[in-house]
Amino acid sequence: MKLGIVIIGDEILLGSVTDTNSGEIARAFGPLGFDVTTISTVGDKAGDIRAAVERSLDANDLTITTGGLGPTRDDITKTVLTDIFGGTLALDTDVLANVERIFAERGIRMNELTRSQAMVPTSCTVIQNRYGTAPLMCFEKTVAYDEPEAPGARRHLICMPGVPFETRGMLPAVTAYVTEHLGTSDKVIHREFTVAGISESALAERLAIFEDSLPAGYKLAYLPIPGEIVLRLDSTPNAQAAEFEEFATALTGAVGSYLVGVGKISPAERALHAMRQHGWTLATAESCTGGNIAHSITDIAGCSDTFVGAVVSYTNEIKATVLGVPKDILDTCGAVSEGTVRHMTEGACRVCGADCAVATSGIAGPGGATPGKPVGTVWIAARTPLGAVERLYHFPGDRKAVIERATAAALALLCELVHATEATESAQ
Amino acid sequence: MKLGIVIIGDEILLGSVTDTNSGEIARAFGPLGFDVTTISTVGDKAGDIRAAVERSLDANDLTITTGGLGPTRDDITKTVLTDIFGGTLALDTDVLANVERIFAERGIRMNELTRSQAMVPTSCTVIQNRYGTAPLMCFEKTVAYDEPEAPGARRHLICMPGVPFETRGMLPAVTAYVTEHLGTSDKVIHREFTVAGISESALAERLAIFEDSLPAGYKLAYLPIPGEIVLRLDSTPNAQAAEFEEFATALTGAVGSYLVGVGKISPAERALHAMRQHGWTLATAESCTGGNIAHSITDIAGCSDTFVGAVVSYTNEIKATVLGVPKDILDTCGAVSEGTVRHMTEGACRVCGADCAVATSGIAGPGGATPGKPVGTVWIAARTPLGAVERLYHFPGDRKAVIERATAAALALLCELVHATEATESAQ
Repeated sequence: MKLGIVIIGDEILLGSVTDTNSGEIARAFGPLGFDVTTISTVGDKAGDIRAAVERSLDANDLTITTGGLGPTRDDITKTVLTDIFGGTLALDTDVLANVERIFAERGIRMNELTRSQAMVPTSCTVIQNRYGTAPLMCFEKTVAYDEPEAPGARRHLICMPGVPFETRGMLPAVTAYVTEHLGTSDKVIHREFTVAGISESALAERLAIFEDSLPAGYKLAYLPIPGEIVLRLDSTPNAQAAEFEEFATALTGAVGSYLVGVGKISPAERALHAMRQHGWTLATAESCTGGNIAHSITDIAGCSDTFVGAVVSYTNEIKATVLGVPKDILDTCGAVSEGTVRHMTEGACRVCGADCAVATSGIAGPGGATPGKPVGTVWIAARTPLGAVERLYHFPGDRKAVIERATAAALALLCELVHATEATESAQ
Repeated sequence: MKLGIVIIGDEILLGSVTDTNSGEIARAFGPLGFDVTTISTVGDKAGDIRAAVERSLDANDLTITTGGLGPTRDDITKTVLTDIFGGTLALDTDVLANVERIFAERGIRMNELTRSQAMVPTSCTVIQNRYGTAPLMCFEKTVAYDEPEAPGARRHLICMPGVPFETRGMLPAVTAYVTEHLGTSDKVIHREFTVAGISESALAERLAIFEDSLPAGYKLAYLPIPGEIVLRLDSTPNAQAAEFEEFATALTGAVGSYLVGVGKISPAERALHAMRQHGWTLATAESCTGGNIAHSITDIAGCSDTFVGAVVSYTNEIKATVLGVPKDILDTCGAVSEGTVRHMTEGACRVCGADCAVATSGIAGPGGATPGKPVGTVWIAARTPLGAVERLYHFPGDRKAVIERATAAALALLCELVHATEATESAQ
């Protein structure tokens, strides 16, 4: 079945806020056999919202909107939906009770604008928002076509709040509603594979024969993210599981040793997995990545069994006094050097009481470049009880890109070190 | 003038990658007087790309696409653009030289797929990509209308790469091209104002009279982000500067003491600014935020004059041994307590040699809740040479939301402390 997503909000069109809701919705509905055909982002203008919603209703079985439901004057979505689906806005006492409950919990005074959240089109079914004040609204209508051979089709629309954690939190209730009211059909089997250590074009060359062998309707997509490439294999609709497995096996064979695993596995998840297999704990010592490695690990629920802590040593003083990088290395080789990052990993293990550590020191830019060390120059070290490695990287891109790539590379280097020492061990 | 953005890539529709390019483009073109009317995201399907591009060309003076230009098989944008704008794909020797230069710099071998990047529609003007291999392509055509009173209009399309740092890096060249070829007109004056310490609906109530006073065509938008609300005031097209200033002054008057400043000022920027006004240095001690406060500060270029470092103390051991939180406080009150975060700020100042510090300790979830301390419970402390404060927060939302809100709240608390002590000083 086809899914269209409509994101409503001036703040997205202005570039003030990055839309993450569409990704959350796509990831929740993919496994149910829904194909996201388009994501349309429009501002808080009635005409634009109406045009985007009607186009999406025409082209998709299900449309999900987010945003445009806040208490302030720039939110006019409910009126537009009443125009499209009929009915009038009326006070919903259940929604009002929910709004009152949330305001009481947060200890905030309610005002008239907030009460307007409880005004709901009479043409919809409400799903109570457990995480915020804006109710979720489910609409249904028959779209008539001019062509006599295509009779009317049932089209569904679900209107979700725009606040990201409310959308994330309410998605299980929305997928349950959809499964009950639309069912799932035309199921496409798909699987993601994480690949690392090879460029996108070298990987494409390596997979050319495999891609030629895929029957029409099967699809292989390349999704490069910092430090990795995620491959996604999609079957034809209603493909047999056994057939899909055959192609999945052929694909993993063709990827060979570059395969990290099945599914989308972030560098931080890979590192946690590698640590857990040995029962090791992990710390980080970060200069140019500024805490982003620790942040990417601690974003993962349950990391506290493995991750113990970090020292962000933005100054040379902290590198010396906290992490114990020798003064003469900092003076002679500089902060961006092999010796510095090696001592940073040793210091992180000692200070944090960790078995393993990664360390970064480099020039994220735009300032800070020195002769021979342009922006993007980063030394990275990794250390486990079985070995240590330091490596020099030159990352293209601006400050943000250098920080992201150095973060991914540090975690990847740790995994590489773990696997290299495992291979040495098993060869002995 | 109107701007339509078309984002191309299966990875966005699948939710594997978050689109940040549209925001970069919107922020670059807003100041030139362009209104982003829609952002359409489509997959790597020729028909969908064509439909989205043609709809955008119809409705906008300028269309910018990103993505769909990689060397792998799922990229078919160039063929679609040749179908729309005419011409054929031909080898561009300048682009080939650029591709060869980039591969040489990165020490990677070129293959046939990479060479295909140098095939360019003969109907376009190329802007060399200084950050990657995919060339930027500028197209122009006259769109004819059926209505005799609306003669043909010149429509422009610029095709940019999909890799975020390439898009960011090439935007200055693209805005320069657009200024030269389209000019700027119908200039809307707009200004952002950052507000903190008040809820969206309370702010809307406060600004109701101001909003009623705005002439038709003026627009005030609320853009809530964690810890703050950004207000954006847009004038009517070609408004007089003096008139706009009048309304801007009225708005800041209505916002009153909740105004943080003009422009979009992140909590980390506010904190850096507050530190610099006193010549103070800053460190962080983070438990539940896991390095995200340090990351949000070090994302800002030039922060190293103020930010010195961080200790991420994910375990109680590090809280005690590195930061010096007394064992009896950890045992009696627990890690999530007023005493713990107060000692964490003291420890961060001492260990990092900083004048000021913020500290967090809380339950980000989904696990870790204890009786009386549900998920979202976070103690935050801030410390400057002039004072210290500890405060208990209850953040709604999931792990990601709690980490984001605690990060914003910690930096906001630091600013509040600085301003409170300033007020006390000046009153004396």
